Amino acid sequence: MGTAGETSGLALSQDILSGFAAMDDAQKLDFFRDVARGMNIDPETVRSTLDAYERDPSKATYRAFASAAEPRRQELIRRLNALPGATGALVRMRADLLRLSRGDPELEAFDLDFRHLFASWFNRGFLVLRPISWESPAHILEKIIAYEAVHAIDSWDDLRRRLEPADRRCFAFFHPAMPDEPLIFVEVALTRGIPGSVQDLLVEDRKAIASHEADTAVFYSISNCQAGLASVSFGNSLIKQVAADLSANLPSLRTFVTLSPIPGLRSWLAAEGLEQPEPDQMSALAAHYLLNAKATDGAPYDPVARFHLGNGAIVHAVHSDADVSDKGRKQSGGVMVNYLYDLKKIAQNHEKFATAKTVAASAAVKTLAAGADLSKSQER
Amino acid sequence: MGTAGETSGLALSQDILSGFAAMDDAQKLDFFRDVARGMNIDPETVRSTLDAYERDPSKATYRAFASAAEPRRQELIRRLNALPGATGALVRMRADLLRLSRGDPELEAFDLDFRHLFASWFNRGFLVLRPISWESPAHILEKIIAYEAVHAIDSWDDLRRRLEPADRRCFAFFHPAMPDEPLIFVEVALTRGIPGSVQDLLVEDRKAIASHEADTAVFYSISNCQAGLASVSFGNSLIKQVAADLSANLPSLRTFVTLSPIPGLRSWLAAEGLEQPEPDQMSALAAHYLLNAKATDGAPYDPVARFHLGNGAIVHAVHSDADVSDKGRKQSGGVMVNYLYDLKKIAQNHEKFATAKTVAASAAVKTLAAGADLSKSQER
Amino acid sequence: MGTAGETSGLALSQDILSGFAAMDDAQKLDFFRDVARGMNIDPETVRSTLDAYERDPSKATYRAFASAAEPRRQELIRRLNALPGATGALVRMRADLLRLSRGDPELEAFDLDFRHLFASWFNRGFLVLRPISWESPAHILEKIIAYEAVHAIDSWDDLRRRLEPADRRCFAFFHPAMPDEPLIFVEVALTRGIPGSVQDLLVEDRKAIASHEADTAVFYSISNCQAGLASVSFGNSLIKQVAADLSANLPSLRTFVTLSPIPGLRSWLAAEGLEQPEPDQMSALAAHYLLNAKATDGAPYDPVARFHLGNGAIVHAVHSDADVSDKGRKQSGGVMVNYLYDLKKIAQNHEKFATAKTVAASAAVKTLAAGADLSKSQER
Amino acid sequence: MGTAGETSGLALSQDILSGFAAMDDAQKLDFFRDVARGMNIDPETVRSTLDAYERDPSKATYRAFASAAEPRRQELIRRLNALPGATGALVRMRADLLRLSRGDPELEAFDLDFRHLFASWFNRGFLVLRPISWESPAHILEKIIAYEAVHAIDSWDDLRRRLEPADRRCFAFFHPAMPDEPLIFVEVALTRGIPGSVQDLLVEDRKAIASHEADTAVFYSISNCQAGLASVSFGNSLIKQVAADLSANLPSLRTFVTLSPIPGLRSWLAAEGLEQPEPDQMSALAAHYLLNAKATDGAPYDPVARFHLGNGAIVHAVHSDADVSDKGRKQSGGVMVNYLYDLKKIAQNHEKFATAKTVAASAAVKTLAAGADLSKSQER
Repeated sequence: MGTAGETSGLALSQDILSGFAAMDDAQKLDFFRDVARGMNIDPETVRSTLDAYERDPSKATYRAFASAAEPRRQELIRRLNALPGATGALVRMRADLLRLSRGDPELEAFDLDFRHLFASWFNRGFLVLRPISWESPAHILEKIIAYEAVHAIDSWDDLRRRLEPADRRCFAFFHPAMPDEPLIFVEVALTRGIPGSVQDLLVEDRKAIASHEADTAVFYSISNCQAGLASVSFGNSLIKQVAADLSANLPSLRTFVTLSPIPGLRSWLAAEGLEQPEPDQMSALAAHYLLNAKATDGAPYDPVARFHLGNGAIVHAVHSDADVSDKGRKQSGGVMVNYLYDLKKIAQNHEKFATAKTVAASAAVKTLAAGADLSKSQER
Repeated sequence: MGTAGETSGLALSQDILSGFAAMDDAQKLDFFRDVARGMNIDPETVRSTLDAYERDPSKATYRAFASAAEPRRQELIRRLNALPGATGALVRMRADLLRLSRGDPELEAFDLDFRHLFASWFNRGFLVLRPISWESPAHILEKIIAYEAVHAIDSWDDLRRRLEPADRRCFAFFHPAMPDEPLIFVEVALTRGIPGSVQDLLVEDRKAIASHEADTAVFYSISNCQAGLASVSFGNSLIKQVAADLSANLPSLRTFVTLSPIPGLRSWLAAEGLEQPEPDQMSALAAHYLLNAKATDGAPYDPVARFHLGNGAIVHAVHSDADVSDKGRKQSGGVMVNYLYDLKKIAQNHEKFATAKTVAASAAVKTLAAGADLSKSQER
Repeated sequence: MGTAGETSGLALSQDILSGFAAMDDAQKLDFFRDVARGMNIDPETVRSTLDAYERDPSKATYRAFASAAEPRRQELIRRLNALPGATGALVRMRADLLRLSRGDPELEAFDLDFRHLFASWFNRGFLVLRPISWESPAHILEKIIAYEAVHAIDSWDDLRRRLEPADRRCFAFFHPAMPDEPLIFVEVALTRGIPGSVQDLLVEDRKAIASHEADTAVFYSISNCQAGLASVSFGNSLIKQVAADLSANLPSLRTFVTLSPIPGLRSWLAAEGLEQPEPDQMSALAAHYLLNAKATDGAPYDPVARFHLGNGAIVHAVHSDADVSDKGRKQSGGVMVNYLYDLKKIAQNHEKFATAKTVAASAAVKTLAAGADLSKSQER
Repeated sequence: MGTAGETSGLALSQDILSGFAAMDDAQKLDFFRDVARGMNIDPETVRSTLDAYERDPSKATYRAFASAAEPRRQELIRRLNALPGATGALVRMRADLLRLSRGDPELEAFDLDFRHLFASWFNRGFLVLRPISWESPAHILEKIIAYEAVHAIDSWDDLRRRLEPADRRCFAFFHPAMPDEPLIFVEVALTRGIPGSVQDLLVEDRKAIASHEADTAVFYSISNCQAGLASVSFGNSLIKQVAADLSANLPSLRTFVTLSPIPGLRSWLAAEGLEQPEPDQMSALAAHYLLNAKATDGAPYDPVARFHLGNGAIVHAVHSDADVSDKGRKQSGGVMVNYLYDLKKIAQNHEKFATAKTVAASAAVKTLAAGADLSKSQER
């Protein structure tokens, strides 16, 4: 990858990317191992350049150290990226790497290089927020159908019901180098009051309201689209940006909430010996779980709770029979939760959560949680 | 810059960027010094994490090393970039740093961090080639006027003469995050035969030819626009991309050449004791200079020659009285040179140049160079 | 509609259009009758202004005559059209008029005013040809599904099969004032050789060829979209424009043909006493029908034949079992026909057809027609 | 122009338009005369078809009458328009006709046909309002410079001063078939309070205010761009549309006024024997003139007053020394006038003006007018 290669570099990059695309998994694994090992840092060089830099901190010694301290496989990824359309191919390459690297320390380290570069390339400042509507191109929309991970879209008619009515919105982040690939998208319902069930939102023969009649924006589905961008987070930015944009365009909106699943509830209940709680106990137990169930690091056990509380939202309300689909019943006994984004308080909530792991919640949810019957659990 | 700052990070970034924009040079210098020093690597941590990684190469130890080996000021730049419009502000910030850092090793090292990130962000794969025409927005065109660095554009009428005729083209690279800022642009004349003077190309009352009548595309001006992107090279890509695009769209084109200045000629002649060569010797001396004058690293002394030869072009022809402007007379006694881009041979030429510093030239130029009278010079 | 109304005209126009949209058919009929009668020409005024113009042909007398000779209902339509979005509403209004006016001479005369204005407004020079692809907006694509009149599109998957493969194209005319409404569209298959059945073209698990491998462009479906633009013809322009554009972009294309239904065949056979021809006679009878069956005006009996022959195409080939759908069997016993558009000969073919009603056909089709067994028919 | 010509029509149209473009004035005049005479109505046919229609009003008889009553030269213009780009050529053709037809009744009648078609084609519903800004394409902006008819734009820097500042706006109507040709444009200044001089608006070293700080939008220049669209009026629509759009986007705007020239003042004063009024009388005389000077039809003598009063504006204020340019001094002794557009009252003002020729004015202007010293005038 020296100077000599600069001009013929594009041709070589093309060969590598095409070659990789044609490989089977075993070959890909070999390729990843070769690169991970062959283009790793050389500790001795790192040490000697570091010594030289420490003795005489100059442009030249720093350059030598920086060059030695970054594995050459990072430069390889940058070189591959010089090709038109390569960014998407590299995202798919990392998806393969993640899939194939589990448990292999060398490959997991290599993945950190991908992640490091992707965090830089997919920086919020480079992303473009675009509305997704019934006027969007079909090849984008079919990806929305495919990538929806929360409440499956089962047909083009279902999709239209989520995009076309005056009280529905959808927004996605795109990267300019992958203009046809949504990175993450959020579906929004404009409502009067905070809804307590996703069935009400998605019912087929619904009468839409005019957007200026709505006082509430409900983020009822957020889906990441690219496996290859795992751990490169945009959800935080997306919700805040969309809330800010909606707020500016629809001054009648007062409340920004989610209607969120509680994916960890059932498994936590099972772990607590509460496999079969009384139906009328479900929402109290859910409230208790959201406020008190912790992972080993002290953060909320529930991944969705962790995400929204980390963004500065609070646990606002808990609803039973809110998602009666098979999936909803299975993961949380049909209970759902509203996280409230109060644009004026999210910075402060976030700080408290980040520093003290404080879970902010409404009085109602706290009261509900206090009434949870944990007797069976406590017996254990 | 820990987790706690993630949410309030955008506000902080905004403060830093606005604050910086309002600083005077002394304050900027202080800011740069604070960041360069305060957010530098800690050699002890680099060593200890490297040791740990070497003992037990795992995802966790690699992450710790990678984190220690990259100065935190790089992460600062990435965080600032999360703001809308920040990329342009960071490019301007680096222009300030370059201007203020000369000779200061600490700041020059800091600049390498900027350069490293910019090389990644302004990767060819992220750039967009756009034609610049008389139908381009005026606020872009006024930047073309301002940034033209080779043959100054002295009015909007002059600009129109370079853009509007059927036998003129202009192309620029843009970055999606700086849509109003050309990064580099090239002006092209479509001609019959290879022109020997820039006056002929830029004369006011010229009769344009139809584009399909042209057999030659002349790159007669290439200008970098952003001081803050110094050493982040796109010229190579630009010429090749434009040549390829023109070739695809205008099959009658057979020849791709530059009409280039020879900026180092006069100073080299002076150094050789040839301040006042005979007029009829100028082109022979220029040919000799282009083929034989070397910098200490063995590469051509002339920076423009270095650029085009490095791209795989050859020295094709040398013309006297080719640029009779004050600037042209001053830097090269009015002599100009055509570098020829033979799309089929540039890879091979480039390799020879890169590996053996071989300067490829036409037979005519070699003959011309052989006839240069260096007697006065050699006396010294 | 005098000067007084000019400013408040827009509000009035808005009232009329909204009012009309809310009417039931009986009310619409009343509205049409009121306008047709109340805003008709006044023969006495026409005569007197004509006399005055003939006596003294001047700007003033011509203006008076022109004003009298045009019924004020034309000006009403123009005034209504001043509203944003009104053009589409007027097209729908005419669709209602056509539906409700049958047999009513007053309303049919009124419709001629609509048609006269629409022919002027939807002039070829105002139309925009746009490709329809899988990247087109979904709200346009759902109209393509709805409007396809020849070979029904039964799902979004079916639509994708007609748009996404490299060897499929679709183009539509749009009017700038109705940007979301295709006026007419044509579906094209790029093939090697001329296909003899629509099943082959539309089969689900087909392997697409690269577009540059195709030598033939097959116009296999042309659908008008707007009932309110009946008798305002664009099909002619569409086919020729698309053929010219494809020819320019895909130089490998040599042949431009249709694969067309023969909608009048069965009814003509029945009229001739040939309800149950032998299967192996169908293509010969179809050829005979296309070449010899005439309407009372001497033009071909078959409406699709009339259209393509009028455009300057020739009857190129006839295929049995070419459309085995219910509809195909019902209207033509499954027989289809290729009309060939030879871009170099269409003007000349058109002239012959227009002046002498000459039906141009390939030798093969003429031979086939000559072998048709009309004995049963001739008995009658 | 029968059926026979339909296909070859485009080629013929192309010949006519190219041929016309190459003609000198004498040839154009011959062409216009040939068409005007040779494709005029035939009075006998009009009469006979009218008789037939009156006897038996049917679709067929109406069609025959309508066809006879419209001169075939209208159909010629429509046929020419079928070519891409022809609309602009036809507008230029009419500009020639207007220039060459003065006083020739036959040609003036022919021009009415052009005007009739253009009024239909350039209907408000077909026009597109586009902002003109410093980000607009240069080839559009150079037309704005060329077409400015009120306060000349003398350089690109002058143009930028009118487009780039935050308190300046410009809007133009375009027709989709002439996307590069503005039809009419208006320049707007956003101000605090109503300005009393155009010098203040156009001064070079002005400090712009933020757009949300403005309470007043001043239409200080309205220019028609196309001589060939004379008498096809869009100014009315333009001002109202722009006022409505600005009002929606900048809620702080309370007042919409013009700052208008008084082009007829000097000539009226001269006709009244008031060639040299006292300077301190100028504004009173201007007020009197605007309120009381009438053309023979009873409408205001001043053409600009006629335009704005006809739109429903009122005479709001009169300012001396408001346009001290040569042109301003010459036409109105430097006096200018604000016409006020009160969006709530324009319909009502318009009706009164249209029906009773009532000139609406502010109390201040009425008082000012009452103080005009007409003694010298009245002596005559």
